[in-house]
Amino acid sequence: MAVYTISRRLTGGGSTKFGVLRYATCWRSYSTSFREEKDTFGPILVPSDKLWGAQTQRSLQNFDIGGERERMPEPIVRAFGILKKCAAKVNMEYGLDPSIGKAIMQAAQEVSEGKLNDHFPLVVWQTGSGTQSNMNANEVIANRAAEILGHNRGEKFVHPNDHVNRSQSSNDTFPTVMHIAAAMEINSRLIPKLKNLHTSIHSKSVEFKDIVKIGRTHTQDATPLTLGQEFSGYATQVKYGIDRVLCTLPRMYQLAQGGTAVGTGLNTKKGFDVKIAAAVAEETKLPFVTAENKFEALAAHDAFVETSGALNTIATSLMKIANDIRLLGSGPRCGLGELILPENEPGSSIMPGKVNPTQCEALTMVCAQVMGNHVAITVGGSNGHFELNVYKPMIASGLLHSLRLLGDASASFEKNCVRGIQANRERISKLLHESLMLVTSLNPKIGYDNAAAVAKKAHKEGSTLKEAALKLGVLSSEEFDTLVVPEKMIGPTD
Amino acid sequence: MAVYTISRRLTGGGSTKFGVLRYATCWRSYSTSFREEKDTFGPILVPSDKLWGAQTQRSLQNFDIGGERERMPEPIVRAFGILKKCAAKVNMEYGLDPSIGKAIMQAAQEVSEGKLNDHFPLVVWQTGSGTQSNMNANEVIANRAAEILGHNRGEKFVHPNDHVNRSQSSNDTFPTVMHIAAAMEINSRLIPKLKNLHTSIHSKSVEFKDIVKIGRTHTQDATPLTLGQEFSGYATQVKYGIDRVLCTLPRMYQLAQGGTAVGTGLNTKKGFDVKIAAAVAEETKLPFVTAENKFEALAAHDAFVETSGALNTIATSLMKIANDIRLLGSGPRCGLGELILPENEPGSSIMPGKVNPTQCEALTMVCAQVMGNHVAITVGGSNGHFELNVYKPMIASGLLHSLRLLGDASASFEKNCVRGIQANRERISKLLHESLMLVTSLNPKIGYDNAAAVAKKAHKEGSTLKEAALKLGVLSSEEFDTLVVPEKMIGPTD
Amino acid sequence: MAVYTISRRLTGGGSTKFGVLRYATCWRSYSTSFREEKDTFGPILVPSDKLWGAQTQRSLQNFDIGGERERMPEPIVRAFGILKKCAAKVNMEYGLDPSIGKAIMQAAQEVSEGKLNDHFPLVVWQTGSGTQSNMNANEVIANRAAEILGHNRGEKFVHPNDHVNRSQSSNDTFPTVMHIAAAMEINSRLIPKLKNLHTSIHSKSVEFKDIVKIGRTHTQDATPLTLGQEFSGYATQVKYGIDRVLCTLPRMYQLAQGGTAVGTGLNTKKGFDVKIAAAVAEETKLPFVTAENKFEALAAHDAFVETSGALNTIATSLMKIANDIRLLGSGPRCGLGELILPENEPGSSIMPGKVNPTQCEALTMVCAQVMGNHVAITVGGSNGHFELNVYKPMIASGLLHSLRLLGDASASFEKNCVRGIQANRERISKLLHESLMLVTSLNPKIGYDNAAAVAKKAHKEGSTLKEAALKLGVLSSEEFDTLVVPEKMIGPTD
Amino acid sequence: MAVYTISRRLTGGGSTKFGVLRYATCWRSYSTSFREEKDTFGPILVPSDKLWGAQTQRSLQNFDIGGERERMPEPIVRAFGILKKCAAKVNMEYGLDPSIGKAIMQAAQEVSEGKLNDHFPLVVWQTGSGTQSNMNANEVIANRAAEILGHNRGEKFVHPNDHVNRSQSSNDTFPTVMHIAAAMEINSRLIPKLKNLHTSIHSKSVEFKDIVKIGRTHTQDATPLTLGQEFSGYATQVKYGIDRVLCTLPRMYQLAQGGTAVGTGLNTKKGFDVKIAAAVAEETKLPFVTAENKFEALAAHDAFVETSGALNTIATSLMKIANDIRLLGSGPRCGLGELILPENEPGSSIMPGKVNPTQCEALTMVCAQVMGNHVAITVGGSNGHFELNVYKPMIASGLLHSLRLLGDASASFEKNCVRGIQANRERISKLLHESLMLVTSLNPKIGYDNAAAVAKKAHKEGSTLKEAALKLGVLSSEEFDTLVVPEKMIGPTD
Repeated sequence: MAVYTISRRLTGGGSTKFGVLRYATCWRSYSTSFREEKDTFGPILVPSDKLWGAQTQRSLQNFDIGGERERMPEPIVRAFGILKKCAAKVNMEYGLDPSIGKAIMQAAQEVSEGKLNDHFPLVVWQTGSGTQSNMNANEVIANRAAEILGHNRGEKFVHPNDHVNRSQSSNDTFPTVMHIAAAMEINSRLIPKLKNLHTSIHSKSVEFKDIVKIGRTHTQDATPLTLGQEFSGYATQVKYGIDRVLCTLPRMYQLAQGGTAVGTGLNTKKGFDVKIAAAVAEETKLPFVTAENKFEALAAHDAFVETSGALNTIATSLMKIANDIRLLGSGPRCGLGELILPENEPGSSIMPGKVNPTQCEALTMVCAQVMGNHVAITVGGSNGHFELNVYKPMIASGLLHSLRLLGDASASFEKNCVRGIQANRERISKLLHESLMLVTSLNPKIGYDNAAAVAKKAHKEGSTLKEAALKLGVLSSEEFDTLVVPEKMIGPTD
Repeated sequence: MAVYTISRRLTGGGSTKFGVLRYATCWRSYSTSFREEKDTFGPILVPSDKLWGAQTQRSLQNFDIGGERERMPEPIVRAFGILKKCAAKVNMEYGLDPSIGKAIMQAAQEVSEGKLNDHFPLVVWQTGSGTQSNMNANEVIANRAAEILGHNRGEKFVHPNDHVNRSQSSNDTFPTVMHIAAAMEINSRLIPKLKNLHTSIHSKSVEFKDIVKIGRTHTQDATPLTLGQEFSGYATQVKYGIDRVLCTLPRMYQLAQGGTAVGTGLNTKKGFDVKIAAAVAEETKLPFVTAENKFEALAAHDAFVETSGALNTIATSLMKIANDIRLLGSGPRCGLGELILPENEPGSSIMPGKVNPTQCEALTMVCAQVMGNHVAITVGGSNGHFELNVYKPMIASGLLHSLRLLGDASASFEKNCVRGIQANRERISKLLHESLMLVTSLNPKIGYDNAAAVAKKAHKEGSTLKEAALKLGVLSSEEFDTLVVPEKMIGPTD
Repeated sequence: MAVYTISRRLTGGGSTKFGVLRYATCWRSYSTSFREEKDTFGPILVPSDKLWGAQTQRSLQNFDIGGERERMPEPIVRAFGILKKCAAKVNMEYGLDPSIGKAIMQAAQEVSEGKLNDHFPLVVWQTGSGTQSNMNANEVIANRAAEILGHNRGEKFVHPNDHVNRSQSSNDTFPTVMHIAAAMEINSRLIPKLKNLHTSIHSKSVEFKDIVKIGRTHTQDATPLTLGQEFSGYATQVKYGIDRVLCTLPRMYQLAQGGTAVGTGLNTKKGFDVKIAAAVAEETKLPFVTAENKFEALAAHDAFVETSGALNTIATSLMKIANDIRLLGSGPRCGLGELILPENEPGSSIMPGKVNPTQCEALTMVCAQVMGNHVAITVGGSNGHFELNVYKPMIASGLLHSLRLLGDASASFEKNCVRGIQANRERISKLLHESLMLVTSLNPKIGYDNAAAVAKKAHKEGSTLKEAALKLGVLSSEEFDTLVVPEKMIGPTD
Repeated sequence: MAVYTISRRLTGGGSTKFGVLRYATCWRSYSTSFREEKDTFGPILVPSDKLWGAQTQRSLQNFDIGGERERMPEPIVRAFGILKKCAAKVNMEYGLDPSIGKAIMQAAQEVSEGKLNDHFPLVVWQTGSGTQSNMNANEVIANRAAEILGHNRGEKFVHPNDHVNRSQSSNDTFPTVMHIAAAMEINSRLIPKLKNLHTSIHSKSVEFKDIVKIGRTHTQDATPLTLGQEFSGYATQVKYGIDRVLCTLPRMYQLAQGGTAVGTGLNTKKGFDVKIAAAVAEETKLPFVTAENKFEALAAHDAFVETSGALNTIATSLMKIANDIRLLGSGPRCGLGELILPENEPGSSIMPGKVNPTQCEALTMVCAQVMGNHVAITVGGSNGHFELNVYKPMIASGLLHSLRLLGDASASFEKNCVRGIQANRERISKLLHESLMLVTSLNPKIGYDNAAAVAKKAHKEGSTLKEAALKLGVLSSEEFDTLVVPEKMIGPTD
């Protein structure tokens, strides 16, 4: 039978030379022996050392798009493990054979721990409902559960549909794992890393609280502030970013499970939706609940568009912060030079002191990508039809990509840049005291016209304000030093 | 002096023939007489019948970009009226001459009511801090207040900077009016119109609650649901959309006022920031507070990026809804034809029954524009430098554009489409009963294999399930009618 | 009858108090007397002093979205004038009564010259085919042509459909005017202004060709180049931008006219499509041709998405250029300060020398908006269905908006900024000679290790390279001056 | 030394427990033994079985962002092989030791063939100049070349900088490999696959040329066209898409190589830039030339933004096509049902005939991602500073991602969907003849009013036009059949 199948595949209408070559290459990396698996389309060969079944194999062949790096993201695979474990648990309450149920739970647990990642070969660019990845999970778990119970792969002692997928449809499981995966990544990766970043920036704000420096608006010299105040703005941006993501969680915690094919819950028992959400909540320690409207939960992924919008805002914030830091750290001789950034890699051996702000660069590239992913997610989110949005894998992949990149890059930026930033106090002081806008302080004493004359003379002659003031004879050196005190310009007066 | 100024302008380096022509055209529409106004650059001619001053006039000449339809949005102008009124009120507490203060309040009130809109000619594409629009407000209010007090325009009896702009900087006023304008538009335009839309869709959901219809996933026939359930998904999307915008308001209610030039509050008195936020709150009946960090409030507009993200999500939802409605209403003969949409304009006189879903079209065009504006706002929001983001007018204009379009289009869609949608019960019933997926109900009685045989026969022969079942002799007409009941397929079982 | 119509409207189901108020306001600004116009929906009142007819009036009432500033862009209105004039001309060849044809041509000519702009009140957010604006053009031209022939408005002596719209459908006229309007704006506004900008930047590149300055990579000091070389990069970007737009014109010059309702050309005579394209080409002096495939021309607007992509690239270029210029012009004391930008408006009276780079700010805001419009156009362009894309007005409006803004802002930037940029030679020279990377030149003479020691010592001690070299005794003052010559570092060696 | 380095790393300031764990995990997958490599930062341990050196290892540790699937795309790695081979070849002309030069060429050849992919572990999210990937290439090739010459890894017999990177800077090599990689992917992957898709759609257009069907505008029934005409629109879209990409190639074929650090070509000999472009052209058989302005070539990536814009347009086209196909193939009973799509995977066993349009779904998801990547590339492209754009790896990765996905998805769509599409002639005919708009043909015979009466009666009664016409007695059955011939409505008349 296996031989027949191969020859049919190799000679069939869809088999170009290219296709044959591809499978040869593709299979070589997996295995050299095969077993037969079946679905309603008939038999198909599957690598013997893999747990997946017929539908996974078909998807692998029908969607040769993007290569291995486009595989469904690991958090989705793990979330399938969690969901299928919980489903087995709840299904046992509704009559699923306990021995089979327990084996499914054990197999699903392995999936949730990432132990079976190699058995999830499908790419994001498949059917838009994620059906094939749902079947991948069902097939792997069924075969693994069968093994646990002493049966062979492919025999369907544990059935992918009847047992593992019981009371479920791809149309509700895939959105459910999307929400589980995203909520877990937000809670375990993004938020902690943003909190660390916030802490680190806030520490710098405190460390720099007494360093008075020139302010810049329109990129031009302006009135002074402290370096600590400047960093407090960054800290606030990160803090609000955390708030923004948290604001979106109530809708992310809503699970579609129980809606089955079109949202009605056909083929489930009453209460199944609530129980499964509770089981997932217990398993993940996150406050998942059943979605209040399953039709919305299948047909739209507004919750993902919304959360992506929060990430887009965070990307906006981080781009501003990283840009400021690289510009304030520009130099060493011909830039602004107010910050000294940690040196992590060789600059040029010929230009000592050259520190490329590489962490800023990695972070801002990530921010641009997050903005791009946001548009992709928006386009996908807007294009659902009737009872189903079929951009699910792309939407899931895009958000998880953004979450991973923002989390990792925030951590890298914190560890390899922010933490080690030093103020170049000498440079900061030099720039501050050369600035012309300190003339403001003279207004009360010598009047606006004289003050303006001082400033204009200094600007014209390239001198200091003090030199100009003394030359014009409008006040003494001591008077100048008493009046021109940047430290008094950094807040409102009593 | 006026003559001198004109001749200088006409012959100066910057005056091309094009430029001259432009002003001729430009002024013709305003006025034929002029008065002289001054700023630190010297004198300049201003149309006599306009209240603006020198800085407004310079901006008008230096930023000839986009024409009249690119003027600063009216909600910004009105918000300037509110802010300047409140500033005068608070400044009187801090020593502003009460007669001048009251005149400013009266003039600012007129601005806030839109009575002086014609005196705000500046376009969005000016300086990125909005300084010129702030000066426009200061100049108009100063001249108007002077008139109220019996003085002439241009005499500066009430001074645009010293009196109207007292304790303020463009750098804190412009973000403040951005927040006031956006918060007011959200509360007075967007939210009420979305609520109406929600109510209307929800009413349809109730009206249609007993109409069982075919479901569609992947655009393909699927198991049934009610038309009411389908609309309940739309209603939920709109409801969550309202929640999403509301979630962003806490940050939108934070006002930058009191930060002055760089966020430090230089040239204000302690407490000014809190008092002015309270005054604005009282004036607008919205819970504005002073921003907890003024550096963030000037240098970033993350709050706008965030709110725009919420609008982007709403656009996503509305595009899905409008797309469904036009497809469900497609026909009259060769489409899905399940909905009958209100006929608002002539279709073709030759094709009676052709109803173009024009409200869906206007709404989805708006949604696309909102998605685009969101990207513009994101790009602008990410590009601040140091103490100031200088994409303020574009960011403000973009968000206000999106708010206006979404609000108006939601209202138009509700009024001219949703409200009048009727179900084509005959068509819905016909499609439902022709559908092959109802065969599912036969499984318990005749077994999966027989049921599949029935379905396959019906599909192959283009017959009904019942015809196929009777031909195959697997059950009687009565049995079929008892078993195949779509109404029992629209929810979980007990 | 008029009274009946009014009362029906005011009391009908769709007339909320808000609606009534709106029309009152709306009409007040137009007129206080009305005439009756008719379409297949029946009679409707139209302001007496307006040339539009029933269908325009219905659209005005059914699409109350966005207000006056959202009116269909003027280039579209003018292009309708051109098209309808050409259509009448060609239709006369195919049998249209010459007296009527000539009157239509005269009326259409007035539209094309903008003389009847006030009679085009419809907003962008209407039916997605632009049918209502096509009917607006037909109605205005019919009424005006009738007047020319001595008949009254509303009598339909010249018929909007049978005469003005003869052989046409909205579905081919609207895309045709989109292409005419865009191609004209590109040729008459964008390209000339970009060419001026290119010329101006190129002149600066020549003017600055001998000014050697520090280069900056990663925002950090790098090896030198001339200021002229730096500007030559900007000039090349603008030149390529022009090329990019020109590359898209072959597809923009393809006209849909002749496709009528679905692309087949039903109700036209063979050859009509070619003749009308030739007429438009003659009228506009642009090489328009008939679209090789009318189905594509109605159902997709890829040509607009493509051209918008070119504008998006130009926006990218201009944002880079404007950012560089504002950063190079930052200061006056505490920034890079290499460029002196023209001072166009008062900076602060307190900070002489502060020049806000306001033209850079306006330009970069425009660039952000162009990027946003590009996404809107992309979303609209991707969402056509079957024989028609119904995002036409939004797509047209978006591209015309981008064209106008980019053109105007380029002109403003050229005139008010680039043209007046001066090099701050003293500052440039100072930074160049303080830079440490000039040490590179010493390698051949004293070896890499000694050179590195010199650089490190200078960096550590904050001294010049020369001071460090002399202190280390590795070479004499004369040797240093002979070897360290930045002017020799600005190109490859022989 | 190795031990010292490890202990320093494990106990150093930057080594958190998390960090340690990571390296443990990370190294385990590579190797269990290490060698020491050095750079100007000092010694560092590198896995013994890897060819990379110190700078690669540092990047690996400093940029722990995104995990393995974020590695620099393979086409970049291969392009480095090509470039370094060509550089060695040209450098030999300028004096590089031939034995070393030849070994470099051999090693680089291996890189270009993908044989050393495992030695390129760095992720996209690194320094924005791609310096670390350039050094990765230099280090791997140097070590491999040394081995070829019988020396050990790490001894630097062949030097990564002095030999492999001779006359080069990361700042010109990375943009050069970006252009090589993109141009090769365009020519070898995208264009051929789009051509196949065009051919396949065009074949269908010919196959379906005589099938007259109902047209649809606004999703509503309209006048007829042939299915072949409908597909000809799709074919034209794909054809123009190919043209659009080809239009961008002249700028993609320009190579930055020879600009070195800032564009001046410092440290190269005259003519090096031209020779290296010629060598790359010869090696790749593509018409690469040296960039006419190297400053633009380093500081901007407008060419990538432009090409991404072309891909964005193609995505727009493909989304339209795929959407139409899935809607035309919707059903089998309750949709439009005009097309029969190939069945590639099991639908539901319960719903025979259900074919999910999964290839359309994969393709439209890809289109959404391409639109998103385009925004990311645009944002990155607009944010260069001075002499260098530091979003290079992200821009490169984004475009290559889009190219790969569009190419692969087009191929998959062609092979698994378009090629097998069949027309459902029976359904098409039924819908066509039920349509009311055929009444148009009666106008000449019975007049507009009678025709309208026929149509209205048919619509009201749900009857056919013929039935209505006969009932009204306006013409005979034979007359009707003679006049109502959809086949005559699919083009202009003579």
